[in-house]
Amino acid sequence: MHLIHPVILCGGGGTRLWPLSRKAKPKPFLPLVEEESLFQQAVNRLANDSGFAHPIIVAGSAHVELIEAQMGTSEVEALVIEPVARNTAPAIALAAALLPRDAIMLVCPSDHHIANPQAFRDAARAAVELAHDNHLVAFGIAPDRPETGYGYLERGEALKGGYAIARFVEKPDLARAQAYLASGNFSWNGGIFAFRAGSYLEELATYRPAMALLVQRAVEEGVTQGKRFYPATDAFAAIDGDSVDYAVMENTARAAMVPVDMGWSDIGNWSALADALSDKADGRGNVAKAGKADFDECSGVLTISDGPRISAVGLEDICIIVSGDEVLVTTRDGAQRVGKLPGAANQ
Amino acid sequence: MHLIHPVILCGGGGTRLWPLSRKAKPKPFLPLVEEESLFQQAVNRLANDSGFAHPIIVAGSAHVELIEAQMGTSEVEALVIEPVARNTAPAIALAAALLPRDAIMLVCPSDHHIANPQAFRDAARAAVELAHDNHLVAFGIAPDRPETGYGYLERGEALKGGYAIARFVEKPDLARAQAYLASGNFSWNGGIFAFRAGSYLEELATYRPAMALLVQRAVEEGVTQGKRFYPATDAFAAIDGDSVDYAVMENTARAAMVPVDMGWSDIGNWSALADALSDKADGRGNVAKAGKADFDECSGVLTISDGPRISAVGLEDICIIVSGDEVLVTTRDGAQRVGKLPGAANQ
Repeated sequence: MHLIHPVILCGGGGTRLWPLSRKAKPKPFLPLVEEESLFQQAVNRLANDSGFAHPIIVAGSAHVELIEAQMGTSEVEALVIEPVARNTAPAIALAAALLPRDAIMLVCPSDHHIANPQAFRDAARAAVELAHDNHLVAFGIAPDRPETGYGYLERGEALKGGYAIARFVEKPDLARAQAYLASGNFSWNGGIFAFRAGSYLEELATYRPAMALLVQRAVEEGVTQGKRFYPATDAFAAIDGDSVDYAVMENTARAAMVPVDMGWSDIGNWSALADALSDKADGRGNVAKAGKADFDECSGVLTISDGPRISAVGLEDICIIVSGDEVLVTTRDGAQRVGKLPGAANQ
Repeated sequence: MHLIHPVILCGGGGTRLWPLSRKAKPKPFLPLVEEESLFQQAVNRLANDSGFAHPIIVAGSAHVELIEAQMGTSEVEALVIEPVARNTAPAIALAAALLPRDAIMLVCPSDHHIANPQAFRDAARAAVELAHDNHLVAFGIAPDRPETGYGYLERGEALKGGYAIARFVEKPDLARAQAYLASGNFSWNGGIFAFRAGSYLEELATYRPAMALLVQRAVEEGVTQGKRFYPATDAFAAIDGDSVDYAVMENTARAAMVPVDMGWSDIGNWSALADALSDKADGRGNVAKAGKADFDECSGVLTISDGPRISAVGLEDICIIVSGDEVLVTTRDGAQRVGKLPGAANQ
């Protein structure tokens, strides 16, 4: 049995987790749920399983030092340093181009939380089975609410260990999301994928030929320094960026999915983080994730502070984040809008 | 016409305005409503009116430097420095003992806001008329809500420029407060008084003879240094402290009141401050009193920061105070409980 090659994408900005998430140290590198950062969790989730190779990490040049520091003694196959951000399709293509054509890649965002890593690894093995049959496999997350912020995958015919994907649906309205949840036939698109490197590059060449050629050139003209790999800037910067969903998954006839229920969260905003931390809450649902906090007649309050004590009185379903020169106080409902605040937008 | 002698009491702790109000710099010395501190407002409210003498200021030794700094070029008659805090009755007695027996004192807390100083001065003149007739006169603040946090004065028979006080009522429950408001016959006890120095000392000697003797000794054995007067510590510390209301006003047969509607607030907590600042609010009732703030779909939010920017999302009727190593977030309703928070109580 060949090893599975994890590819960990570190491109997420996480502006909705401002002011903790900032350009210099964005969301993947923050210890949001556990003591480890989300990035460290993504690496360690696969590190002690002999079925997985050392990961390929794709990141921007601004975060190389953070990554190397957070990797500690963990080994990488390669650290691919993008000269500019061009979304996920080119990032995955860079990693694919560094692997043998028949190597199986497991593409993972670095800014998600998975409460049940064993369920994740089991689903990964099912996905790999389908990938061996040349499918391009998406993880279909079991939905637990009519979320309107995610894309959905509709199940098609049954395949060995999964399903064909009948349809990709972009963020639905609430009525459709409720219908999807009720039908039991839809999963969330969690941005986790498995495919042969060659399958991906073939499909990319079919549906985004210019992108495929520019990635190929960026790799051919790239520079290796130890574990670091620097794709050529000119070729890579010339790419018209796109997501793996738009560029490949929604076009290929070989799209498949594996359903998985693994306590997944993209920690998309402060409210989602509060949910992910609910097992650490006091009897009234309050969590002091970092720093000291005093709660007086509060419920559902999340506090994070890098120094000052937070005292909260009479609050319900509020997130309070104190980070350096910024203090954010938001309702759970308002958390979705944090990325548009002047402080978050004008970093 | 003799000058009226303002006596400004600086004993208020203001723990409900924590974390801005702290032991080292409590509420009177903070610029809560205007650019000036409440203490400076108390002084300046009378400073440019030729009917008033320079004030006597009574304060604790911890705040002498603050007071002298905030007085600037304003002159004082005396700065009486209490060796220990013994509540208002002895504080007022110290000032009375420094004045001629027939001098009229106007006793003012240093931690209240008065939006209409002219109405205050007019009421003071009416009070002085009654004080000349040997009444001990309380200011009766026109109530605008069924407040349960204040004491009330019930009007008795009409006197020249005011009324006798039929009854003092301690903080009533809501039903009684509503009845008082509806009756039109009750005023709030604002803690502002006018009387002859001799009248006060006589009544104190009648109802609190031990206190009166100890104050007398503390003054006789006290030390003058320029404008500063230091009562003797042993005698003053031996006093069993009490409020002017309990010690004198509720006992004397010569209690009177002048009704006044002057935009008064004791700025008793953050919610009261938000009310006092309502004329500075944006169209949705948000006020950034100090520091930078961004409001997104907020209403009735008060922010104060000594540095960090405050970003508020989706909040309604919330006060956010950032001061040094403390961040307070409280509902308007919870503001009354701030003084009991660990941070406020364990300074």
